[in-house]
Amino acid sequence: MNAKKELQVSAIENGTVIDHIPAEYLFQVINILGLDTCGNSVTFGNNLGSDKLGKKAIIKVADIFFEDDEINKISLIAPHAKLNIIKNYQVVEKKIVESPDKVVGIAKCMNPKCITNVEEVTTRFKVIEKTPITLKCHYCEKITDHKHIEII
Amino acid sequence: MNAKKELQVSAIENGTVIDHIPAEYLFQVINILGLDTCGNSVTFGNNLGSDKLGKKAIIKVADIFFEDDEINKISLIAPHAKLNIIKNYQVVEKKIVESPDKVVGIAKCMNPKCITNVEEVTTRFKVIEKTPITLKCHYCEKITDHKHIEII
Repeated sequence: MNAKKELQVSAIENGTVIDHIPAEYLFQVINILGLDTCGNSVTFGNNLGSDKLGKKAIIKVADIFFEDDEINKISLIAPHAKLNIIKNYQVVEKKIVESPDKVVGIAKCMNPKCITNVEEVTTRFKVIEKTPITLKCHYCEKITDHKHIEII
Repeated sequence: MNAKKELQVSAIENGTVIDHIPAEYLFQVINILGLDTCGNSVTFGNNLGSDKLGKKAIIKVADIFFEDDEINKISLIAPHAKLNIIKNYQVVEKKIVESPDKVVGIAKCMNPKCITNVEEVTTRFKVIEKTPITLKCHYCEKITDHKHIEII
């Protein structure tokens, strides 16, 4: 067998490429999008060279075309991610992620006394500013700004 | 940019390819080998077609050459995995995984009364049979056979 051929991961015929994910968040993006349990053919690359991010990750999923609200869930951790929609090996559409209006269960409230930090309660925020992203907790109303966002 | 070029994940110049991993265990293999926190360039493919396994996963890690005892840790969940050692884009060595003599913290003891199932104690087994793999618990001495091995 030709060694080079054996090593290559083939391009997808139809599906979605998510590029420019910060390397440290690849596995959280996989988790948020449910790609760890999906049966479709998926390829992940991590710690690849990127002029913008230093090191980036990329995901290629065959035959899945995400809804905007699904993909926007990753905006907290991968705000500069870019999507290429692939049909018949060609990029037919490009999308960027956008901040959602609500964030559920992804970020931690920065108020240590918030019920979500004391009991087993899923965090819920309203996005009150999109750039830079600023969250207001549904429970304690404390603001968590971009610099203090911590991913669960 | 050429769409096809953009989609391809390039071959590794030097490193290790781990092939024939059962698709359902890719993320556990990543975890066992510490690839979720490693800074090297890594590519994962999951749910790829395989004649032997139905669906398989593959991992390509740049510039890492595993020691045998590291790689043998995955034998419980990926007993048919095959390693290709790559240097200068060429396969210079092929390896298979082998069952280790001891298994620590990967499998669950099948005895519900075992201390490892009651308290926060890391499981420890002696491998008393390699094919099919059979484990003897260090704590309760109960045998966990191949059919009952459950990955933590």
